[in-house]
Amino acid sequence: MPELIQPAVVGATGYAGFELTRLLLDHPRVAKPLLLSREGDNSTRLDLGDVYPHISGNGGFPVTPFSWKTLKEKGVQLLFLATPHEISREWMPEAMAQGLRVVDLSGAWRLKNAANRAVYNFDDKDPSAAAQLDSTATYGLPELNRAAIQSAQLVANPGCYATSVILGLAPIVQSGLLDKSAGIICDAKSGVSGAGKAPTSKTHFVEVADNLSAYSVFGHRHTGEILEQLRLEGADLVFTPHLLPIPRGILSTLYVRLTGPATAEQVLKLYRDFYAESPWVRVFPAGKLPQIQYSVRSNYCDIGFTLSPDGKRLVIVSCLDNLIKGAAGQAVQNMNVMFGWNEKEGLN
Amino acid sequence: MPELIQPAVVGATGYAGFELTRLLLDHPRVAKPLLLSREGDNSTRLDLGDVYPHISGNGGFPVTPFSWKTLKEKGVQLLFLATPHEISREWMPEAMAQGLRVVDLSGAWRLKNAANRAVYNFDDKDPSAAAQLDSTATYGLPELNRAAIQSAQLVANPGCYATSVILGLAPIVQSGLLDKSAGIICDAKSGVSGAGKAPTSKTHFVEVADNLSAYSVFGHRHTGEILEQLRLEGADLVFTPHLLPIPRGILSTLYVRLTGPATAEQVLKLYRDFYAESPWVRVFPAGKLPQIQYSVRSNYCDIGFTLSPDGKRLVIVSCLDNLIKGAAGQAVQNMNVMFGWNEKEGLN
Amino acid sequence: MPELIQPAVVGATGYAGFELTRLLLDHPRVAKPLLLSREGDNSTRLDLGDVYPHISGNGGFPVTPFSWKTLKEKGVQLLFLATPHEISREWMPEAMAQGLRVVDLSGAWRLKNAANRAVYNFDDKDPSAAAQLDSTATYGLPELNRAAIQSAQLVANPGCYATSVILGLAPIVQSGLLDKSAGIICDAKSGVSGAGKAPTSKTHFVEVADNLSAYSVFGHRHTGEILEQLRLEGADLVFTPHLLPIPRGILSTLYVRLTGPATAEQVLKLYRDFYAESPWVRVFPAGKLPQIQYSVRSNYCDIGFTLSPDGKRLVIVSCLDNLIKGAAGQAVQNMNVMFGWNEKEGLN
Amino acid sequence: MPELIQPAVVGATGYAGFELTRLLLDHPRVAKPLLLSREGDNSTRLDLGDVYPHISGNGGFPVTPFSWKTLKEKGVQLLFLATPHEISREWMPEAMAQGLRVVDLSGAWRLKNAANRAVYNFDDKDPSAAAQLDSTATYGLPELNRAAIQSAQLVANPGCYATSVILGLAPIVQSGLLDKSAGIICDAKSGVSGAGKAPTSKTHFVEVADNLSAYSVFGHRHTGEILEQLRLEGADLVFTPHLLPIPRGILSTLYVRLTGPATAEQVLKLYRDFYAESPWVRVFPAGKLPQIQYSVRSNYCDIGFTLSPDGKRLVIVSCLDNLIKGAAGQAVQNMNVMFGWNEKEGLN
Repeated sequence: MPELIQPAVVGATGYAGFELTRLLLDHPRVAKPLLLSREGDNSTRLDLGDVYPHISGNGGFPVTPFSWKTLKEKGVQLLFLATPHEISREWMPEAMAQGLRVVDLSGAWRLKNAANRAVYNFDDKDPSAAAQLDSTATYGLPELNRAAIQSAQLVANPGCYATSVILGLAPIVQSGLLDKSAGIICDAKSGVSGAGKAPTSKTHFVEVADNLSAYSVFGHRHTGEILEQLRLEGADLVFTPHLLPIPRGILSTLYVRLTGPATAEQVLKLYRDFYAESPWVRVFPAGKLPQIQYSVRSNYCDIGFTLSPDGKRLVIVSCLDNLIKGAAGQAVQNMNVMFGWNEKEGLN
Repeated sequence: MPELIQPAVVGATGYAGFELTRLLLDHPRVAKPLLLSREGDNSTRLDLGDVYPHISGNGGFPVTPFSWKTLKEKGVQLLFLATPHEISREWMPEAMAQGLRVVDLSGAWRLKNAANRAVYNFDDKDPSAAAQLDSTATYGLPELNRAAIQSAQLVANPGCYATSVILGLAPIVQSGLLDKSAGIICDAKSGVSGAGKAPTSKTHFVEVADNLSAYSVFGHRHTGEILEQLRLEGADLVFTPHLLPIPRGILSTLYVRLTGPATAEQVLKLYRDFYAESPWVRVFPAGKLPQIQYSVRSNYCDIGFTLSPDGKRLVIVSCLDNLIKGAAGQAVQNMNVMFGWNEKEGLN
Repeated sequence: MPELIQPAVVGATGYAGFELTRLLLDHPRVAKPLLLSREGDNSTRLDLGDVYPHISGNGGFPVTPFSWKTLKEKGVQLLFLATPHEISREWMPEAMAQGLRVVDLSGAWRLKNAANRAVYNFDDKDPSAAAQLDSTATYGLPELNRAAIQSAQLVANPGCYATSVILGLAPIVQSGLLDKSAGIICDAKSGVSGAGKAPTSKTHFVEVADNLSAYSVFGHRHTGEILEQLRLEGADLVFTPHLLPIPRGILSTLYVRLTGPATAEQVLKLYRDFYAESPWVRVFPAGKLPQIQYSVRSNYCDIGFTLSPDGKRLVIVSCLDNLIKGAAGQAVQNMNVMFGWNEKEGLN
Repeated sequence: MPELIQPAVVGATGYAGFELTRLLLDHPRVAKPLLLSREGDNSTRLDLGDVYPHISGNGGFPVTPFSWKTLKEKGVQLLFLATPHEISREWMPEAMAQGLRVVDLSGAWRLKNAANRAVYNFDDKDPSAAAQLDSTATYGLPELNRAAIQSAQLVANPGCYATSVILGLAPIVQSGLLDKSAGIICDAKSGVSGAGKAPTSKTHFVEVADNLSAYSVFGHRHTGEILEQLRLEGADLVFTPHLLPIPRGILSTLYVRLTGPATAEQVLKLYRDFYAESPWVRVFPAGKLPQIQYSVRSNYCDIGFTLSPDGKRLVIVSCLDNLIKGAAGQAVQNMNVMFGWNEKEGLN
């Protein structure tokens, strides 16, 4: 039996951090994760089972204050940051210096293009260190970037919306069948857990239930990820997120025009070939569309499509669970790739 | 055409205050309500249509800072307080001194028994003035208390749960058929708007959706109202509230044992007679139970029951909309009674 | 006081028919509506208050079997058909012959273009009579078609999705600012009541809750209405409906490209001017988007938009209640226009 | 490595049958389950992955027509019936004759008392064979009945509500602290999947959403199970189920009076001792109440309580997932007990 890797999670009390912790607890290749909280985040030491009684009954899950010393003492080999992006920006240079491998679930290190990073308004203490990490960080979407992730020290786990849109569009964009002059419309809808655990007027039950709203039109932070990863910078791509009255799950409806008429068989083959080595993408038969329910609580990204009768308009539907394939599951998938394990390990 | 009464509403931006404002805007006997906010509550003057775009398109609804002087200048005759109970305790002596009639939607003045008031932990500046108001305030449940409300200066609008439970139990309690030795169980379930508009972890969509939870067992503030109004102080009555994953509505399931076997016809007649003069209570035929959907967005309290085969156990179901019959609609109904208008006026 | 018009409703037990009945009961210009059911639809006479206890307590609402003789005897002047389109196709020639004015809520008479009608697969007994009615029926969208509705004998009440999309697009389409070569994407989301009252696996709570699904891509029946009313036949317009886990409400996100850069002020003025005489459309300030909650349970269609930074991409959001502005409320609005009353009558 | 047991599931397309299939697919002690459908239930052979795309991507899940011959040929050792109770009554004598061990998820064989069985109105072809099975069938609640289940040939898997109520009450009922003269109130609330997959007006999204309703008061089929298993026949016990607007989960609020004052420590010890050997029951600390969310999608039954200040009234809250601990998970737990495996096997 091979030695277990020791992971640590900072931010386990958030929704994504908790999902991540649950996944790591069941993962056959890793030791029980060390759970850490930022100083000031919790005045007293707490147990994750008190915050989430869902997992009580299986022993204690103490959350202890973060320090670099604790990481070293506990022999942590892989650090998961489920922290606000400000923290990830601040801590990362030291984490790298300590020789840790890191999967960062925030938006801190996803973007290569400084113009795209502007929406985050980062305030780096050491801009040159930050700039170097900006250029060396690896975008952690295994389906597009498997080889680079394997050897990466810093993996920037993709945004939930971005994962859904990029995986839905990548095959057609890379195929050459795409008519870029026509515009690419990405109409995405997400459950509320994507907005995080902090209570705000936007996550109040009465404001969300029986409702639907669009937000951040032409200004959502995930737009840059989509453009960069699909190499569509400058294209007429519109990304519009909506807030669904459900706890979790994303459905993205993606509209593209083709350069000429295609057949459903062609498109299906294109997608199936593209994801032939990707166990966490399921491509549905032509005309059969995924629904949020099918992939929720799994690490799958489900993709289906319908072709217009004239073969020139393609509508793609991409679904995933924002907390799993859109966050914690993808982080574990990245870990699997980083350590050379089977990509499905611990995710079934 | 008779002169219109001038009402004012403090706290129109909360859920109950907004419902009240909507009802007053449509009421044929009152002028457009003056909307007021407490000092410090809003740094700038705002328009209610900005907070609730639902009502935009019908002209402006400016909210102005509260002052006694403004009330006088605008000729306000009836003051509705949809404010926290602390404010109502603080302001009421002055309101009385100004000669205003007041309908207070908070829990400040509902309880006669000092022991029951203890759960509120009131911190009165002028205890003797408060004590006098405690004794003179009128509990605003028209179905039980119509005559007193008509001449009252200060009407304490009942709690939403309390309204549901009291109306469901009053006929059987007053009938003498009740076996008080057996215990009275009040299992109540409410939508989330009852918890108010402030975002907290308890009103976060992800915590409420797909969930149900009991809370404040043996400790809910409405218990005192129920005991006092039904004259059941000291009885073995249990009241348990639950938080439902719906925006609005209350269903209370009430369990009593009878002193001897009764027939469904007897019970039905008892309830129908009791509410014969009460247009806002609908008594359902025996065995046909109300559901939350039937009364939501109306001022009705719907009551139904099922009798056990042996005629000795009675299960009563009582439904209402916590924001209407449980708050704003009842406040308007109280106003109708106070001014001698038809009790249904402005509530259809 | 003017004489009241006598309306009749066939199909009052369905969701739209029930909403229509409620609206007519409160309408100051019409008598209590005659409620009729198709032969075979109900074995016994029933009361609408038994199906919808929501309205019980206000007297009886008997539903009687339909016959032309009954209509005549009761002096019916306006017939509302909330029936399946097959019934509306079958009955309409006789209704016209009887000299009745009709508002038909089904899809039977909305489409002028025979190719668009093909999706309904009508099986007319008298094809020539049907063809004549196809050409003379008036599409009942008052905002676009007020004058024709006023004198129409047969008004085809628009589809719910179609209303939302057409009202959202009409100003920009008619303005000449639209770049038709770029494609027009209509991504629409509807609550479940739009699927009707019949229980199916698609309306089962467990299949809908916590879910979102796209359906009828490139094949929805409302697409023809949209193309015809906007005079966009042959354009690259895609309409994709989705099923939301909410009871009612539609939000359509509409994507268009402009022929050149525009300013938000220009677009706002365009929309405000277009709907200046239309009291049931609310145009929101630039960048402020409507949500389903704002218009639900009202007859409003709410429209907002965001313009891309370069001024060339316009995203329009259009919201309405599928049972009110998308069905029953619009039917009443059409009645108001047909009889020369204020368009807001009975709809506040 | 020990030989795997071969299970078969009849009724895998229903909600409970599907959950059961998922659990068996992951269970380390059993072979891939044979999925069977009743004759006439499916005109063609189907794949479970077509009905539930959730599980697609992991190979085929063919559902084949049921026959005793197929069971024999495939070497089935354990038969799970997730069928209507009529089928279970009809098939069971033959299953017993074939020497099969059976876990029946329906209500067919749960009740010992003929009077309690009357609510099912069984129409047995061979009444004497049925009577014998009625007396020999084992009620499959491991926490109360572990030893008998181990050697049983026919295990009657308990009802979902019954499991929740029995586990919540058993410790206090068996303790002797219960004042039976006071009445026992069981107010239970369940998600919609408990009503099954067949679409009816009661499971229509629009009828359930934003609603709550009580049903089958004094007449629910699970009442007999509760009375029999707790040996409370003849007691004044009331069981009232309610339909919650959520897909899954049950919360039962249970009200009992004690013979004398107790302390929270006493009650906690009583419950903890009672379930000391039961890994699937979690007893919460005094005053900390379980919520549906904590146990949903797990096999846990969570139990918490609050004691009145005078120590004489006990309110117990019991939560579980109606499809797991209330059906499929409990069936697997029973299998574990029947074959002498660890009770947690395959259920984590």
